[in-house]
Amino acid sequence: MKKRIAIDMDDVMADTHAKFIQLYLEGEMPRYTLDELKEKSFHELFDENEYKVISERVYEPGFFRDIPVMEGAREVISDLMQKYDVFVASAAQEFPNSLREKWDWLGEHFPDISWRNYIFLGDKSVLDTDYLIDDLPRNLHTFKGEGLLFDALHNREDNQFRRMKSWQEIAAHLL
Amino acid sequence: MKKRIAIDMDDVMADTHAKFIQLYLEGEMPRYTLDELKEKSFHELFDENEYKVISERVYEPGFFRDIPVMEGAREVISDLMQKYDVFVASAAQEFPNSLREKWDWLGEHFPDISWRNYIFLGDKSVLDTDYLIDDLPRNLHTFKGEGLLFDALHNREDNQFRRMKSWQEIAAHLL
Repeated sequence: MKKRIAIDMDDVMADTHAKFIQLYLEGEMPRYTLDELKEKSFHELFDENEYKVISERVYEPGFFRDIPVMEGAREVISDLMQKYDVFVASAAQEFPNSLREKWDWLGEHFPDISWRNYIFLGDKSVLDTDYLIDDLPRNLHTFKGEGLLFDALHNREDNQFRRMKSWQEIAAHLL
Repeated sequence: MKKRIAIDMDDVMADTHAKFIQLYLEGEMPRYTLDELKEKSFHELFDENEYKVISERVYEPGFFRDIPVMEGAREVISDLMQKYDVFVASAAQEFPNSLREKWDWLGEHFPDISWRNYIFLGDKSVLDTDYLIDDLPRNLHTFKGEGLLFDALHNREDNQFRRMKSWQEIAAHLL
């Protein structure tokens, strides 16, 4: 039997942070430039109110539908599928508007992954796969297999999990 | 740590077969009475075309939103939640229209179950819980914990799994 990999969507398959940056820059009088926004996390740059305003945009219908694909994800996942059973594991249940949008997004950008391998859940501790690739250390903490931390501005402090700086590093580790 | 139970929705928490019967009886010239429909499965009663017509109604928007709650489910699940961590595990990914409808249905009928414990997936073999209560033997076959088969007209042939005739029997077994 092939080994099984579960892959998170936001900030792993999908460049969700890039979408937030775009929305912020389109907003009223942004205080930071694109370069600054690519250097530091929203938590470092924004005050509480600014953070709340930008993060609540996830509740808007359509937010999850047009997020760009993370650089390298398409090619590497296609290669991983030759060797592994690939599942998509997204904590989509927090945002009910995201459920259909994520289903449609996956069908558009990853047509080779069957709906049979989509998993939309809240708590990833119920997953039984060999690997989990995720940007949130809290999801890796409760995972029994090998957790791989996908590098992001908001997880730079973590040093408990093996950090993958890019999809190319994932390819090098797993292929 | 509490033991964990995953519970299927259709024909376990939700009386989906009752909804199909209702739609059939509202259709053009039904050939069977309610009593007959409660005695035998659609596979036994219907020819291929009739079966196709009725089963394709799951694709209609709204199909999953107003399904009645299975008799006893609310009370027993409420009791199970005292002793176990209860997760809902529905193979909803086959029907993308069902995703939001199932989320809303759960919020209406089972408000004490958090969205954190919803799992919408395609292939239940990725689940790592202690129990799975499901009406489809194929879902129990790939499950590593204790599988409990929820009795239904369409699974009467199965004799591989412990059969639960009702939510009351589940209470007697697990509480």
